[in-house]
Amino acid sequence: MLTTLTGPIHGTVDPRLIETLAPLAAAVNGDPEYSFQAAAYRKGACVLDIWGGRHMSGDSIIVPYSVTKNTIGLSIALLVERGLLDLDERVAYYWPQFGAKGKKDVTVRMLLSHQAGLPQARPLLTWDEILDHHAAAERLADTRPYWQPGSAFGYHAITIGNLADELVYRVSGRTLHEFYEQEIRRPHDIDFYLGLPEGMEERRVPVLPMTPPVAPAPASYLPPLLIEVMGGAGPDVDLANDEASWRFGHPAGSGIGSARGLARLFAAAVTGVDGGAPFLSADTVSVVGQQQVRGYDEVLGQAHRSHSIVFQKPTPGMPFGGPRAFGHDGAQGCFAGMEPDTGLAFAYTVARGPWPGGADPRAFTLLRAVGESLAEVTVP
Amino acid sequence: MLTTLTGPIHGTVDPRLIETLAPLAAAVNGDPEYSFQAAAYRKGACVLDIWGGRHMSGDSIIVPYSVTKNTIGLSIALLVERGLLDLDERVAYYWPQFGAKGKKDVTVRMLLSHQAGLPQARPLLTWDEILDHHAAAERLADTRPYWQPGSAFGYHAITIGNLADELVYRVSGRTLHEFYEQEIRRPHDIDFYLGLPEGMEERRVPVLPMTPPVAPAPASYLPPLLIEVMGGAGPDVDLANDEASWRFGHPAGSGIGSARGLARLFAAAVTGVDGGAPFLSADTVSVVGQQQVRGYDEVLGQAHRSHSIVFQKPTPGMPFGGPRAFGHDGAQGCFAGMEPDTGLAFAYTVARGPWPGGADPRAFTLLRAVGESLAEVTVP
Amino acid sequence: MLTTLTGPIHGTVDPRLIETLAPLAAAVNGDPEYSFQAAAYRKGACVLDIWGGRHMSGDSIIVPYSVTKNTIGLSIALLVERGLLDLDERVAYYWPQFGAKGKKDVTVRMLLSHQAGLPQARPLLTWDEILDHHAAAERLADTRPYWQPGSAFGYHAITIGNLADELVYRVSGRTLHEFYEQEIRRPHDIDFYLGLPEGMEERRVPVLPMTPPVAPAPASYLPPLLIEVMGGAGPDVDLANDEASWRFGHPAGSGIGSARGLARLFAAAVTGVDGGAPFLSADTVSVVGQQQVRGYDEVLGQAHRSHSIVFQKPTPGMPFGGPRAFGHDGAQGCFAGMEPDTGLAFAYTVARGPWPGGADPRAFTLLRAVGESLAEVTVP
Repeated sequence: MLTTLTGPIHGTVDPRLIETLAPLAAAVNGDPEYSFQAAAYRKGACVLDIWGGRHMSGDSIIVPYSVTKNTIGLSIALLVERGLLDLDERVAYYWPQFGAKGKKDVTVRMLLSHQAGLPQARPLLTWDEILDHHAAAERLADTRPYWQPGSAFGYHAITIGNLADELVYRVSGRTLHEFYEQEIRRPHDIDFYLGLPEGMEERRVPVLPMTPPVAPAPASYLPPLLIEVMGGAGPDVDLANDEASWRFGHPAGSGIGSARGLARLFAAAVTGVDGGAPFLSADTVSVVGQQQVRGYDEVLGQAHRSHSIVFQKPTPGMPFGGPRAFGHDGAQGCFAGMEPDTGLAFAYTVARGPWPGGADPRAFTLLRAVGESLAEVTVP
Repeated sequence: MLTTLTGPIHGTVDPRLIETLAPLAAAVNGDPEYSFQAAAYRKGACVLDIWGGRHMSGDSIIVPYSVTKNTIGLSIALLVERGLLDLDERVAYYWPQFGAKGKKDVTVRMLLSHQAGLPQARPLLTWDEILDHHAAAERLADTRPYWQPGSAFGYHAITIGNLADELVYRVSGRTLHEFYEQEIRRPHDIDFYLGLPEGMEERRVPVLPMTPPVAPAPASYLPPLLIEVMGGAGPDVDLANDEASWRFGHPAGSGIGSARGLARLFAAAVTGVDGGAPFLSADTVSVVGQQQVRGYDEVLGQAHRSHSIVFQKPTPGMPFGGPRAFGHDGAQGCFAGMEPDTGLAFAYTVARGPWPGGADPRAFTLLRAVGESLAEVTVP
Repeated sequence: MLTTLTGPIHGTVDPRLIETLAPLAAAVNGDPEYSFQAAAYRKGACVLDIWGGRHMSGDSIIVPYSVTKNTIGLSIALLVERGLLDLDERVAYYWPQFGAKGKKDVTVRMLLSHQAGLPQARPLLTWDEILDHHAAAERLADTRPYWQPGSAFGYHAITIGNLADELVYRVSGRTLHEFYEQEIRRPHDIDFYLGLPEGMEERRVPVLPMTPPVAPAPASYLPPLLIEVMGGAGPDVDLANDEASWRFGHPAGSGIGSARGLARLFAAAVTGVDGGAPFLSADTVSVVGQQQVRGYDEVLGQAHRSHSIVFQKPTPGMPFGGPRAFGHDGAQGCFAGMEPDTGLAFAYTVARGPWPGGADPRAFTLLRAVGESLAEVTVP
């Protein structure tokens, strides 16, 4: 049923989507530094599985930075589905130490939508603590929030991974990595890993540095909180490329896998794949996809950001779907997300993302074209 | 005491206000497409009752779109006044089914200030459901909010009428239409109807389409939620002009009446008319006029909107009064509101509103001039 | 250890800071209308105590307007430290009358971070009431908030002083003035007074009017609430210069003292002075310095303001420190604040502030240079 492509874009594609690929073919032909993967499932069937450029093959795997956070969101969703986690319960109910220093009334909902005020710990977290299942979480539990919890939100770029890891452990007795591996990845054969397994090293493609523009950008205001959060302590770690990072598989930023795997992950959750049932009910999907916050991000200092439970929601700068869509981009161009209304799961990875970072706009151009090409009826 | 005018503006007016009418006279003389009514009460006495243009007489009645929402606000206020409705009670206390799908803690206050996240239902509401006392409400009760209730607000352009109708029914055993008719309209002889009575059809003036500018406006970002909310299902209904609509009298948008009636409605509520007592106490007026929300509107995608209980509050784009003023505009130019400090009730209707919609700026120009002309003392 | 300066800037200074004074020396030399004081403590030791210009000596005292609010913040902090005041308790628990008119659930935290909606009373407060320990507070207790408490915040420019005065009285049996005098000012020998003591009159320097620009500023939108709050009733009072005002020492705006005193006040609180212990624990400092609100200010109509408990937090327009810094500026140029991370307390007063008001940017330029010159290590 799918058409096999022969170049410059490779892979297989639903024939209705061939015309949507023209911009990507032009990009690959025009820029020897451009390499990508993209994949999509529609109502559980793969409709797109393509790649192009000299750095990536169809089997390449890469660290897509915060696109990894989708594994948190879907693991949390599965715990909610099973009745093991109540979003409106206080975090301290599951994790008593968390209640210290003005956090006793922080709910799971607040924690998982960047409202808890813990984008860093005091003193600042070390990388050794960050790349650990419990150390950073213990330190965050003993930190007073940067803002009164619930009064604001700000991107917990790294720490949401440590906080969610500990929360999953308290609820399930397993690390988030174990829970994801055992309950989601392995049963559904997802090519996306929290911690690269032994023997797959040769598939790994490094994230290449973005090319800054020749003329420097005008200086902009950096929120003091952003400077502090990014500051860190001790030697720098390259989250994408250092082995300590991708071996650990930080849930907030250093999982590794293919676009094929990321699209299948969302499809398995929401529509099911290969004729199987989805691992989430429609009700749970609506719960974790519901917008929790919108507006000014305390950490990034950006005026218009929005989150549901862990996931990002569409905003003017990230036009990836309608009111029920959810997903997450990464620092250097990757993106994966889901439109529950149409059953379209989508993922895009890129080896060298475009300056200045955030999701590659080419991902959204492709996503929109795919959605329009496959649309059969008006959404009810 | 009032001066009778002979043209181009007709009607009666307090002599102190004659100079305020010059801009309207110029507009009528200069634009054959311009027709309006305006009326004002000061401390219970009519000080202005005028009209002009070829489409409207003093007795014309028209659907002023969301200006109709003022009937919701004042009906709710009367229920609060009588102790039948507690704004801080959970909606589900009065209406158990409403508590489904993450809404059990939504309060009446949140529901009536556009914070409940229900600007549409899933699947989308049909017009048959919307123009019904219970059908749309039942569907909304079974819908998960678009956003976490209380975390944001967005204009429930249509649904606030259905939600309020059901709430009034649960509290009083009467539809909002019946309650308004029996407790407010008839006792105070208000020429504004939720559902046009038989025999008044010849008074009805249709809403004429706005004239778009010759050059199209530059494309602007439309929030996905706005597209969905406006989308609807099934055949379109002209809310202002279709008989099914004005016969039903949707509380959010298709009541019908005159500017005279709308001004009298506010005066009867806040100052009393014809020497009678107001039907609301000053305390209740301050309760329903108190600002509940301000900022980004999730549905409209506009940065600066504000509401009290149902009503709109003044904003830079709608400068209709001081901190205690309240009222509501309509989609195609009409407006009615109240300044409790000075006892000035004001209403303005227009047959063909100015592009691109929202309250006609001429309404605010007139309102300000009237207020200044009648000002006796500095407000305490 | 400190170097004594001989002009145009006078006073004493840590030798490492001498180069930071060049901009101030140029300002004094270039503008005969410019006079200032500045002072700083680092980890409890005075490192800067300077002044310049013809209007001020080292011993001058002046009313720095809202810089006075730092005395509220530190007095509240001491009550919290001693366990006499719980920020999460309802105000009405301590002050039953306050619970009237929709305020029963307002917490101390909300009241002291400008969220209670009481920037004025209805009817408007008179100056006689404002300059009284209880009269304005009683009136505010009987006022319905301008906005639903907790839904927004807006600068309570004057009334936060009256509200805090009453709250301190209910908790401690002493006025805020007495509590500050007895527990903070006298024990730590702070040259900043809530109510000028007899015999110090000759030290007082009047606040001189700002010089407006020759070309008038373009008209800007004034929020109706700002107009009302600033309106007041009865004859105007010059808060800075009228004896009734500085004799009373309004906690929101008419304390009086020197920059030396203000810097020592913060140092005594956070680091201790003269080898003594600080009067606040590090934990209390983090509690009162924690951001409570950020965004649109309902009264000022400004898009980006932020407060902790009473204090201001850094914003793009007030870049005075990192995520834990706190302080307060005044209407005509003065500023005082604290960076707990580095133990740097800083104050700046000016006799004739620069148009259009708010903290003098020269204060922040000096503060940043001082901080950089004294920095020893990266903050953990």
